Amino acid sequence: MGALQWPGGGSVKMEKSVYLSRRAAAWGKARASTPVDALLVSRSADVGYLSGFTGEDSLLLMNKGFACLITDGRFAEQAARECPGLEVIVRSGPMSAAVAEAARRRKVRRLGVQGGHMTLSGQAALVEALGRNRRVVTVGEALLELRAVKDAQEVAAIRRAVRIAERAFRGLIAGGARALVGRTERQIAAELDYRMIQAGADSPAFDTIVAAGPHSSMPHYRPGNTRVRSGQAVLFDWGAWSGGYSSDLTRVAFTGRIPPKLTEIYELVRSAQAAGIAAVRAGVSVRMVDLAARKVIERAGLGERFVHSLGHGIGRGRGSAEVHELPAVSRQAKGRLRAGMVVTIEPGVYLPGVGGIRIEDDVLVTAERAERLSSLPSVASAWILR
Amino acid sequence: MGALQWPGGGSVKMEKSVYLSRRAAAWGKARASTPVDALLVSRSADVGYLSGFTGEDSLLLMNKGFACLITDGRFAEQAARECPGLEVIVRSGPMSAAVAEAARRRKVRRLGVQGGHMTLSGQAALVEALGRNRRVVTVGEALLELRAVKDAQEVAAIRRAVRIAERAFRGLIAGGARALVGRTERQIAAELDYRMIQAGADSPAFDTIVAAGPHSSMPHYRPGNTRVRSGQAVLFDWGAWSGGYSSDLTRVAFTGRIPPKLTEIYELVRSAQAAGIAAVRAGVSVRMVDLAARKVIERAGLGERFVHSLGHGIGRGRGSAEVHELPAVSRQAKGRLRAGMVVTIEPGVYLPGVGGIRIEDDVLVTAERAERLSSLPSVASAWILR
Repeated sequence: MGALQWPGGGSVKMEKSVYLSRRAAAWGKARASTPVDALLVSRSADVGYLSGFTGEDSLLLMNKGFACLITDGRFAEQAARECPGLEVIVRSGPMSAAVAEAARRRKVRRLGVQGGHMTLSGQAALVEALGRNRRVVTVGEALLELRAVKDAQEVAAIRRAVRIAERAFRGLIAGGARALVGRTERQIAAELDYRMIQAGADSPAFDTIVAAGPHSSMPHYRPGNTRVRSGQAVLFDWGAWSGGYSSDLTRVAFTGRIPPKLTEIYELVRSAQAAGIAAVRAGVSVRMVDLAARKVIERAGLGERFVHSLGHGIGRGRGSAEVHELPAVSRQAKGRLRAGMVVTIEPGVYLPGVGGIRIEDDVLVTAERAERLSSLPSVASAWILR
Repeated sequence: MGALQWPGGGSVKMEKSVYLSRRAAAWGKARASTPVDALLVSRSADVGYLSGFTGEDSLLLMNKGFACLITDGRFAEQAARECPGLEVIVRSGPMSAAVAEAARRRKVRRLGVQGGHMTLSGQAALVEALGRNRRVVTVGEALLELRAVKDAQEVAAIRRAVRIAERAFRGLIAGGARALVGRTERQIAAELDYRMIQAGADSPAFDTIVAAGPHSSMPHYRPGNTRVRSGQAVLFDWGAWSGGYSSDLTRVAFTGRIPPKLTEIYELVRSAQAAGIAAVRAGVSVRMVDLAARKVIERAGLGERFVHSLGHGIGRGRGSAEVHELPAVSRQAKGRLRAGMVVTIEPGVYLPGVGGIRIEDDVLVTAERAERLSSLPSVASAWILR
């Protein structure tokens, strides 16, 4: 068999020691929350973070002394390539039986599971397979906190995911307004996805949003069959998944001209974003960063039109449900930024029936400031497509 | 605000009475398995089946007498459009609080949840929100059985999803071998996805497989950065999601010529598929249908190279984990085909290091026979691209 390619592989290599130390930290966190003998990691992003594995339907069973990846025949070769040195169990029967067998062999009596990623049926099957003397207990979500601070290799992977997303977007709009006008939101989103793959993405990081005209006022709009017209705002929210890491960007482009009702809104959002980015540095509370941007919008009397939080962490999470990682950069959240966190800064103002403006960049938190990982311009004039 | 487009909408209209009778049947099934006062439906495909709603992150709370969809602001307008006459609750707080509030209002004491689609954390939040006097119990997966038999409107939607997938594939390979040779599996898969959207799909039905040369011997291969070469087999497994329903097809195309080692294998798989399809009619056990195809391959001494079951139901399920619906057409499965089921017939033979052949069509079970919903030829000569 020839050399196999595998999703997410190749671009960012990490030493096995990285995973050893991540697992040691994860074990420390898990034990601190609940007394367990071993941890069954089921969220794909966590499995990848702790082992390097980027496939699916696979679990990591681990404690202080051991770790093994439980997968099936589809992923056996990929696991061997991505996780050199890690024990890999290729199950043939049900997952619960394979976990129970491994747990028994390691004399695990209290098995910790991730409550947010274990279904009732999954738990029931596990309890039955484990038998009487072994218990299944839910552990907290400490792994999410651990993943919030990125190391240099992770930052490099995110940087690459940002570059890919930007290249694809620049390619899409290189044709000017003609690249958008007359086409449906869904067609345009599909082209942007296609261009991300061409530019080297393993997949889009989440469902790409393309929202034409008034649709841009819905922050989580899903692209439909509406055709873009001249003189409209078109909101794009997209990102690439590459080497196991995501990017997440938003820009609004204008077909020919900026609708007059949005001209000042655009400038307002741009100022708010600049204020938010300027507030970022290690040690600042996430609440203060949110407020720095929010105040700009509130002063213009539009605070109620900024209906979401300022930003969120990004990293290994993928898909609309998982791309938002810790930290939340919001008024309600507690805690402070730490060096090595990568967060989005994405204020928005939404006028129902008219349209919305959101500008989103990805920044790395350092001791002194925010280092912008994305490089697309934010001035409105850059996005008026002729 | 202009007319909104929404995913999955438009092409297949169903009367509200369809959902009323589906809910009545679902309630009967749920009650037969476990005594509950109401059912909380959380699997998206089930929510859609019982309400017509095609959005996400939304639950259906129902019993014999009532039904309401609990969603959030993102999907409020879509829910109103897709589910006329249905009560829609637009939550602002956590889902668990909204469910508890609705359950309290309806005096629900025992709430049934879908064990395969409720996480431990979700259950814990629900138990807390419901308070002391209300219980959460797991009900069986009877809804999956209910969904196995399709009505005429569902069959029409699947037919359309098949047509879209076929049109996209024909478009992709219209350029001959040049459309494939020198490009990576991932690029080709992205183009096929893009073409499905252009042809009217709401999205791909699952992660498209493009497997070049020896990779085709892995039934669940994920496309990578390997470039297609001349004289290779390239396996495609793809489907469209349209109007809430999926299609699922597989063909193997050849760049220039059929690799000699695969010529006889191809004919064998084609005969096996024909035998499988010929065995399909209402009343036949799924086991016998699997065996009809399997015997052909076993007689050639290659039974061990046919490593999966013959087929599976398709319908509202979407994504690699959900596209396989009931019935399973396999040796291990029990039960018989019923008129109105739609199943894939997809035998395969896989030679590690050499390549694999799989041919997959979607068929409707009728009283007398299998009606093929897909129309791509299966003879090898049709797929030798020059």
